[in-house]
Order: sequence, then structure tokens, then C-alpha cells
Amino acid sequence: MKTTYAALMGLRGQLHFDAIESPALAGNALGDPARRPVIVYTPPGYDAGGSNRFPVLYCLHGYTGDALGLLAARPWERNVAQWMDRLIADETMPHALLVLVDGFTRLGGSQYVDSVHNGDYATYVIRDVIGHVDARYRTIAREGGRAVLGKSSGGFGAMHLVMEHPGTFAAFASHSGDSYFRYAAPPAFPTVQRTLEAHAYSLGAFVSAFEAKHKRHQSEYVTMEMLGYASAYSPRSRTAFDLDMPFDLRSGELREEVFARWVAFDPVERVASHEAQLKRLRFRYLDCGRRDEYGLDIGARLVSERMRECGLEVRHEEFDDDHRNVGYRYEVSLPALADVLDKEL
Amino acid sequence: MKTTYAALMGLRGQLHFDAIESPALAGNALGDPARRPVIVYTPPGYDAGGSNRFPVLYCLHGYTGDALGLLAARPWERNVAQWMDRLIADETMPHALLVLVDGFTRLGGSQYVDSVHNGDYATYVIRDVIGHVDARYRTIAREGGRAVLGKSSGGFGAMHLVMEHPGTFAAFASHSGDSYFRYAAPPAFPTVQRTLEAHAYSLGAFVSAFEAKHKRHQSEYVTMEMLGYASAYSPRSRTAFDLDMPFDLRSGELREEVFARWVAFDPVERVASHEAQLKRLRFRYLDCGRRDEYGLDIGARLVSERMRECGLEVRHEEFDDDHRNVGYRYEVSLPALADVLDKEL
Amino acid sequence: MKTTYAALMGLRGQLHFDAIESPALAGNALGDPARRPVIVYTPPGYDAGGSNRFPVLYCLHGYTGDALGLLAARPWERNVAQWMDRLIADETMPHALLVLVDGFTRLGGSQYVDSVHNGDYATYVIRDVIGHVDARYRTIAREGGRAVLGKSSGGFGAMHLVMEHPGTFAAFASHSGDSYFRYAAPPAFPTVQRTLEAHAYSLGAFVSAFEAKHKRHQSEYVTMEMLGYASAYSPRSRTAFDLDMPFDLRSGELREEVFARWVAFDPVERVASHEAQLKRLRFRYLDCGRRDEYGLDIGARLVSERMRECGLEVRHEEFDDDHRNVGYRYEVSLPALADVLDKEL
Amino acid sequence: MKTTYAALMGLRGQLHFDAIESPALAGNALGDPARRPVIVYTPPGYDAGGSNRFPVLYCLHGYTGDALGLLAARPWERNVAQWMDRLIADETMPHALLVLVDGFTRLGGSQYVDSVHNGDYATYVIRDVIGHVDARYRTIAREGGRAVLGKSSGGFGAMHLVMEHPGTFAAFASHSGDSYFRYAAPPAFPTVQRTLEAHAYSLGAFVSAFEAKHKRHQSEYVTMEMLGYASAYSPRSRTAFDLDMPFDLRSGELREEVFARWVAFDPVERVASHEAQLKRLRFRYLDCGRRDEYGLDIGARLVSERMRECGLEVRHEEFDDDHRNVGYRYEVSLPALADVLDKEL
Repeated sequence: MKTTYAALMGLRGQLHFDAIESPALAGNALGDPARRPVIVYTPPGYDAGGSNRFPVLYCLHGYTGDALGLLAARPWERNVAQWMDRLIADETMPHALLVLVDGFTRLGGSQYVDSVHNGDYATYVIRDVIGHVDARYRTIAREGGRAVLGKSSGGFGAMHLVMEHPGTFAAFASHSGDSYFRYAAPPAFPTVQRTLEAHAYSLGAFVSAFEAKHKRHQSEYVTMEMLGYASAYSPRSRTAFDLDMPFDLRSGELREEVFARWVAFDPVERVASHEAQLKRLRFRYLDCGRRDEYGLDIGARLVSERMRECGLEVRHEEFDDDHRNVGYRYEVSLPALADVLDKEL
Repeated sequence: MKTTYAALMGLRGQLHFDAIESPALAGNALGDPARRPVIVYTPPGYDAGGSNRFPVLYCLHGYTGDALGLLAARPWERNVAQWMDRLIADETMPHALLVLVDGFTRLGGSQYVDSVHNGDYATYVIRDVIGHVDARYRTIAREGGRAVLGKSSGGFGAMHLVMEHPGTFAAFASHSGDSYFRYAAPPAFPTVQRTLEAHAYSLGAFVSAFEAKHKRHQSEYVTMEMLGYASAYSPRSRTAFDLDMPFDLRSGELREEVFARWVAFDPVERVASHEAQLKRLRFRYLDCGRRDEYGLDIGARLVSERMRECGLEVRHEEFDDDHRNVGYRYEVSLPALADVLDKEL
Repeated sequence: MKTTYAALMGLRGQLHFDAIESPALAGNALGDPARRPVIVYTPPGYDAGGSNRFPVLYCLHGYTGDALGLLAARPWERNVAQWMDRLIADETMPHALLVLVDGFTRLGGSQYVDSVHNGDYATYVIRDVIGHVDARYRTIAREGGRAVLGKSSGGFGAMHLVMEHPGTFAAFASHSGDSYFRYAAPPAFPTVQRTLEAHAYSLGAFVSAFEAKHKRHQSEYVTMEMLGYASAYSPRSRTAFDLDMPFDLRSGELREEVFARWVAFDPVERVASHEAQLKRLRFRYLDCGRRDEYGLDIGARLVSERMRECGLEVRHEEFDDDHRNVGYRYEVSLPALADVLDKEL
Repeated sequence: MKTTYAALMGLRGQLHFDAIESPALAGNALGDPARRPVIVYTPPGYDAGGSNRFPVLYCLHGYTGDALGLLAARPWERNVAQWMDRLIADETMPHALLVLVDGFTRLGGSQYVDSVHNGDYATYVIRDVIGHVDARYRTIAREGGRAVLGKSSGGFGAMHLVMEHPGTFAAFASHSGDSYFRYAAPPAFPTVQRTLEAHAYSLGAFVSAFEAKHKRHQSEYVTMEMLGYASAYSPRSRTAFDLDMPFDLRSGELREEVFARWVAFDPVERVASHEAQLKRLRFRYLDCGRRDEYGLDIGARLVSERMRECGLEVRHEEFDDDHRNVGYRYEVSLPALADVLDKEL
């Protein structure tokens, strides 16, 4: 008997493994492929040749993740596709498509922003990924038919995209999304300084050594993470590893002017200046565990507070957990997002 | 563009997602499905209609894993299929098939043994899985064309199967395989006693509570693990959760007679009595990290020592690592296993 | 102004820093001093020249501790002398003396047993320490006037002394005391084997390296701990480091015959054969945290169960804590012990 | 035989337990005692009635420590008095006195600064403690005869005192001293916000609950630590717990204007403005482990860099360790400090 990857995960719906060639990512400094997977979940009864059209949820993975990683199946847990499939089967949410977006880079993640160094990942999502999905699937191909969500860096990406690309999505959900960088990032800088010093302050030497290892220490993952953020928030040029780090490589001292470039991407800082973009959304959702190791619960509080100060409604939830394995929160966000989107009968 | 799961993992070869209906697993106490996936990797150039036949490596996952889990793709690492594909592309090993075997149960794993409670997982592998593969793929369908390997509980399974089912495989590799239960298991018993006491000593109540949770504590995983072992080594009947635990549920005292049933499965104890079965193997491989949290490095030393005492050659390697994420050891075992198997020209 | 160490700890009573020369410890293999401190706490109003006599509580420190260590003052906590002083001031317990006994060795602790290798620490306590205290202080110098207590290895020592030296103490308290060695000890053996292998299997080489270091790794402390136990439970001779380890130094395999010598000291095993000695006690007390890292809660349950099977009453308490910093349990044990001892009016 | 606390610690010299009544601490908000211990180590041969005078090293303990804590004896380690005694015995350093200063408060520590809330701990050290020592001991009672050192908050205190009270000390040593607060403090703020929220944002309620507990969680210690810093750096009044916290209690957002008050105490920030005070020192010493959990190695680098930018010589050392148990560094600092001080023949 033949089966499918979707069936092995217990899905009643189908998975479609597509690939697109993204002009937005062509010629990037890291040599990351412009050809990217687009994985599409369609619910039971989806008929590519039918007349029904469906709303679409775009899911963005976190740092060190990729599109495939969103499909990883852990025993006794459900990934985002398994949750969606289950919630549809239970009639807890309406039929909708789910698109798993790939934002991985050689430095572990793009943060879904346009970067002179990494390539234009925001443009890639908004134009290339959505363009493909709307062209090939029976979608409700308009703002009212789309929402975006993600966890950690994916939550950041969701907030970034609704603020920078208004008119694309009608709702967002950020699970433990990167925010309030003042707390989230600097605690890592001493570790990163030490690690880079061990590689003679050469980012490229560090990356090469990292890639050559069978196994990496936690401090090495943290270092790569900060390189990933620098490649998104403070790149210098299209030359590989030509990044401004937010601290002096030799002394470790904070470089305020570079860190200010990071903070300019902080959702907390951007709400006020993006009030109009946020206002057109039908639904805004943030949650975070109250033991989040990066203090992102504070960030979610502040983003929510800033939105309310602008007169915007926001659904903000907290729960007793840390940053890891909070995929069970999709049970809350997926129906809430789908509920506000346009449907066709 | 369409792509495939295999392509997304960067494979040059193909993945085949099959399913079989296993009589050996029918009617098990846990209600686990008798229908199981069999995932087959075929190398580039494999032609189902051709005349070439290939040796087959059977890979067994560890506790809490399943067949799909062996395909999980982690950034900067390779899973067993990615290693195999790469080693074949590099001509470091000959063309061969790789079969990912599923041994998951509701209690987290079967240890690949025949159990009145769980179902006959050894028989299932030997008869049902291999039967399917030999029937559907161009295999060298004989002892000389098969090897078995695995990590952790999968390494145990590999050793169990070559000892209990001689004539099936010509070689085995055990990575950090379960052994020397005297060190590996009892350290968990106090934790398990405390956890089960919190569920009024009811194994079923614990399992139900475990399954209902969004997230589990480490002590709960450890408890489930010991239930899994009891279901394999000391089951009482075909009634769900009717297991003998190796300690008194109320006092926590070791039950020597039950633990003796576990130890009877310990590879260290079985080498001497299975000398003939082990002797017919062409190749025996064990490795383990010297910081293994379960002390399985001691087990690997003892299994190797016992084999040498029987005059058997064994390749035994140690490395500086713990129990987690040692998949890079496949780089050593896969070519070594494939090299000793029959080939067809 | 002059003050005193006792006053700095906030004591209303006095501390007396004595020293004795113990024949029982003379000529030991480790070169540990036969001259030992005996620290005596006397309550407010104690008059060395008066006619009142007081019951005495003997307190035994844990592994890696010493008499002085029992006086370590941690902010927001109380040590045993501070508890005693406070409980007497509150009239929660009667006036009594507290003696802090020193059982430290070069290997971190004596377990308070007579050892051909370490010296006769049980004899030292029973004869030399008590002899000194009864000679110099106004004690009720008889069984009915003495109790013994301790934490961890000190709790073990308390149980050991009441069983091996009946007629000395009328009561004991064991806080998280070493017991059920089957769970407590073997989990450390793989670590110890690895550490000793790094010193070419030489115990002496390990100890020298340990002592020469500025700072030691946790695995090195664990190794020293097991050497300490071997020096108490399985010494070979009066030559330094001539100990039988309970596992094969090269393979790590359990040496059952050596471990049996350890288990012969296990309180769980000794209750039945020491029923008469235990019966003459007026009070038996054990407690342990239910998250004890060494599983000593199971040990305390089993010792208590064994005593009850002999028809002996025992006060057995459990609490929600681990093995560290449970000194607050003295609040329970000190009054309970003092209450059963003889008083003079 | 009688012995002494000093002898029990193996000292050849003597310990003097004094107490003083400090006007600087009288009437503080926390109700901490104005009567404080002053513990003085005198080397072998010290003669209170003789004509020789000695230089004095003043040692400041870290956060949660006190004067007595500096005398805690850990097996296989040496405390500051044991190091001093040993170095003098080895003739590695000249004869000198060592004074253990007490700076503990109900909130865990004073940082040795004058605070409207806590009392004037800098004044207390400079005037009351030194006044007492110079009055009662045979000291070289002038700047050239005094040095100050400490670890962690004690290292901070050393730097604070030499900058704010020039003319008192001729040298300082800071071991893993608090500095570069931008990295050291904010990582704790999310934890503190969560903890205080659980006490309805009442600092007093938190402190009372903390004090009433038998055992505290790590997050509670961290919270107390930040209260301690606020009581030193950003007190509001002489009313207990009337402190400005550097973040909004409800949202957790950084309060820049309060944190600026903390940063005004940061040694990194103060070097330039205290160049004259630092210039008069004969010797400046900083060290820190390169795995310091608070990133204080970066702080030590920056303080040293700032001093060198002012043309000041500084001895700056790094070592491979974290923040805990680095007392072995006294072996370096004690002789280096004593060497530059005035001696009398």
C-alpha cells in the first residue's frame, strides 16, 4: 500500500509540496537558494477544479526553523498542520488553506525582512509566495481572505509584514513573537563576544567553523542567532558576513548606534508610527508564556499596550509556560484568525 | 513547480511512503494501529523495473520516535536518510536501500520485542516489514543482503533482532544502544514512583493524564519511558496497562524478580547464550558517547567485551558526547554496514 | 567592642570550641588529624559550675561537611545551632546542649563508621567525643540523656551509631539520610569510571589532581564522594587509597561482591537484624524531601516500613523539596528529640 | 583542650571579632542594625602592645554575603583569611592585617554606597570601620597603608570607595566586580516583574513573603537582588521599600530615567569623571572569569580600557571560569595589593 506524508501525520486533508523561484532572493550574499519550498495544506474536500474559494493562513516558522520544520511530528504533540486539520474536522474552525512559508538562511533565519545582505524576504513573502498561492490554489485572493501567524521570529515576521505591507493581510497572530529587543537581545551579547573572539573576530570564520562541526554548543547557537539578527537588522552590504554587530567585537561594549538600528525593527517601537496600517486589520492577536526565557512576555504586553493606546483592540493572552514547544497555542489562534476572514459559500 | 518531501530534504534519491497491515500487531492491548508506515529510501538511479538488486539497511528509531521522526530535518544536521544519500553521492558507500521502520506505541516505543501486551514487534519487523520490502523493492532478499541499525532503543532493537532472529541480517550497528540495564534503568525508578503515586498508582490514569496535557514535565516523560520498557520486558497480559513494574508502586522498593525479567533482555547478559547467532554475523558495531546520561557507554563496553570473550570481532568506538543528537555517527556506521553486504553487479 | 562568633550568628547561648585527641583516629591511612574539634553549644543560663545537668543532642554533618561547616551562616536561613537557640528561646524545646561532631576526611567524609583505612570514626564518636563532652560539660551522662541526628551522611551516621552502639543514645533523627544504596549509589558509577579512567585508574592520582585544582567539576565531586564511600564501606587495608571500588575500573561493570559490602551498611538492610538495638530507643525519626536527587525518600520509606514490620514506632515525614538546604527540618527534629530525653530539675 | 575558630580554620594568625556602633547606619529605613561586626585578621607575631605597624587590606563581601560569610570554610578551598594566612606563611606576601567589613542589609546588600534608604554604607566604611581599626590595631593609618578589595558587589564597592573617597586607599582589587550595568542588570527585569506581580506589585509584601519562606526559588533571589540594587542606586526616601524600580511594575517596560540613576553608579561610566581620584592610586587591579553569567568580564574590560584611555596603568586579568567560587583569585590580588602598600620595619 502507498501512503503519503500527510497521511503518516494523520491528516485528513492534503499537503502540497511546491517550489517557487523567488526574484526577491536572487543574488543574496549568503548564497541561499532563490528556489524555495511552498507547502500548502488543503482541507478535506478541497477541489482544485471546483468553484469554492478559501481563506488562507500563512504560517511563518521561527529562528533555526524552515518550512519543513513546521511539519516535524513530535509524539503526543501536534504541529500547525495537525492542529488545523483537527480543528477543521472538529468544526471548531471553518475550512481554510494553510501555507507554510520558508524563511531560512545560512545564518539561521531572515526575520522576514528585506535585507541588502540576505535578500528581500518580506517582498518574497508578499509578492512571490502569495503570488504563487493565489495563482495555483482556489484562494480568496484579497486582503480579507488572508491572515499571517507565527511563533517566535515567525511572530515577529507576522507583525512586521502587517505593518510594512498593509493591504495584504486582514489579521495576524504572534505567538511568543520577538519584541522589546532591549530585553531580548543584549543578554546574549557577552556570550557572542566571547565566541567571536575565539574566532579572531571573524564572522565568516565563525560560520565556517560552526557549519563544519558535528555538534554545537549552546553558546554557538546563540552566536549564530545574533548574526542572523544582524543580517536582518544591521547589514552593511551585499558582501557575505559584512554586518554591523551591536557591540564592539573586541571590548564587547554596546554600540548604541547599531543597536538603534535593531530597535527600529522592534514591534514595540513601531506601533505608534504604523497606527494606520494596524487599524485596517480586523483582528490582532498576541500571546506569550510568562516564563519566556527572552522576556518576550514583556514585549507582548508592551505591543498590546501600545495598540490600545492607539485605540486599537487586541487580543492578548498569557499562559504559564516558557518559550519552547508552545505549539498548542495554535488551537487558540487558528480558529480566531479564520473566523474573521472572508468566506465563500 | 511541484517538488517532493525528499527534494526538500535535499535528497538525490527518492523516498517511498508505504504502509503495511501487520498481523503481528493486530489486537494489541494499547489499541495501536496494525497498519504501519514503511518508508523506503532508494538511491539515485534506482529502477523499480530494472534488473539490479540492492542490499538493504533497516533503521530502527529510538524511544519516543517513529518512522516519520527519522526524517525530521534539523538545520545544520543530517538525518539518517540525508547521511545515506550524501555518502552514496560521495561514493563513500555503495548503493543500497534504507528502510525506516516504525516501532512506536502509545507508551512511546516497543523496543522491537514480541510482547503479549504491545504486540509482536520483533515478528512484525522480521516477517511483515521485511516481507513487504522484499516483495516490492529490488532487494537482495537474503541474510547477506540485510543489515540492521539504530540509535538508543533502536540500537537495542538491532541487537535484539540479530540475537533472536538469526539468519535475517548479516550485520548490525548499535549507536548508544540500550544495554547494561543495571545502570540505565534504576536511576529513574524513584521519579517514576513519585509520579505514579500522584496518580493513585494507576498506570492507566497516568497515561490518560499524560495524553491530555499540552506539555509534560521531564519526570512525566521518564515515567512514560519506564512504562514503555515494562510493556516490552515485563508485561502481564493483553489487558491495557497490565504490566509488572520493577519496583513496588507504594514503597518504591526494587522488585528483584521483575527487574530480573528486564535484565533478561539486557544485551550484556545475552551475548554468551547467543554466541552462535552472533557468530554468523559478518560485522558487529557498537558506539557510544562517553558522557551518555544513561551510562550506555558502559553497556557498549560490556557488550563488546562479552563478544570478544566469545572470540567474536567487534568494532567498538567511543566519542566525546552525550546521548542526544549523535546522528553524525551514521557517517561511520552506514558505510561500514553496507561494505560487508552482498552486492549485485 | 569585642563580640563573639556566637553573637555574630545571633545566638543567645554560647559556643565552645574544644579539641580532642582521638586514639580511634590515630595512624589512619589518609593522614587525617587525630586531633579534632568538638564544638559545643550551651543554652543561655548554662553554668559550667552549676548543679544543673542537661541532655545532649549530637549533630553529625553530611558528606563534604565538617564541624565548622555546621556553623556556616547563610542569609535568611538558620543553621542547626541557630535553630536550637531560637527554639529554646521560644520555649518550643527544653534547654539542652548541642554538640557538633567532626567526621571529615581527606576523601570528604567518614560516614561515621569504623574503617581499617580511614580510622574508627564510630568508636571516635561514641568513646572519644562523648567521653570528652561528658567529662567537661554538665551533661546527663547516660543513654537517656543523649540523642543523635544528622542530615544526609549525618543521617546515615545517626542510624549507624544507634544500631551498632546500643546503650549510647535514646533517640535519633535522620534528615535525608543515606539509605537504599541500590538507588542512591550506582547512578554515579559511570561518571566515576570515566573520571578515574582519565587518571589511569589510579585513585591516588585522582585525589592529588583534585586537591591541586582551584575548582572542580561536578563529576569530580561525585567521584570523590564514591571514593569516600568506598573508604568507609569497602576498604582493603591501612594503605592510602587501597580501596575496593564497587565496579570494575576498566569496564565499569558492577562488582557485585564489593557492592554487597556497601549494601551491608545500608540502613534498609540492617533494621531486621538490629531490631533489639532499635527497640530500646525512645524515639525514631526519619524525613526526606520527595524530590531528593538520590532517591533517599525511597530509602526513608523503606527504613520506616522495616521498623514498623518489627513492631517499632517511627515518625516518618515527607516534604516537597530536594536534597539541598533542608536545614529548616531541624525545627521539627530538635524539639522532638529533646522532648524524649531525660531532664533534671 | 580549648581551640579557636581561627585554629579550626587552620590559621596561624588570629581572628578578632569586634563590633562597632555606626552613626552612619543609624535610623535606616530597613531597621538594619547600626551595630556591626568588624572582623580583623592579624598575622602570626602580631603584638597589640608592640611597636610595629602594619598595612591593612579591607575586604568587602558580595551580595547576600556578610562579614561572617567571608569566613565560611569550604572543604578543598580557602577563604580570604585562609589565603592571606597561607600567603604570609609562604612569605609570598608581607605581613599585613585583613579586615572583613560587613555590608549586609535586609535586602541582601548595600553595595557600600550612601543611600537615603539603607543608610550611609560608604561613610560607615570610610569613617566608622576604618576609624575603629586604626584606633584599636597597630595599623599604618594613612592612605599609603590601606587597600580595598572585594568580589562581585564587593569589587564594585572597592571601586566605588576609591573613586568617591580619595585619600583613603592606595590600591584596589575588584574580582568579578559589578560593572557595565547595561548587560548585568536588565536580563533580570522580566523575572523581577513577574515575581512582584505575584505580590500585587508590593515590594514590602514580596520581602515579607521571602523572609517567611523556608526555601526560596532562584527567581525570588534574583528579585531580592534587584531590590537591593534599587535600595542603593534609586531609593526614594527613608521609608522602608520606598524605591524606584528601573522598570514599570505593571508592564515591565524599562524606565530609562530610573535606570540612568543606576548607570550613574556604573564604574565604567565613572572612570573619566574620576580620573584624578584614580590617578592617585598606586595600583589598580581587576579580573573576571570569561564565562561570568552577568557579563562582568565585559565590564572589567571596559573599566580597564577607560582607565588606560586616561593614561592610567591597570592590571587586568581574565580566566576560564564563571562567577561562582572564584576565591582562588585572592592568591593573585592579596600579594599584589600588599606589595604596593607602605611597610614599617
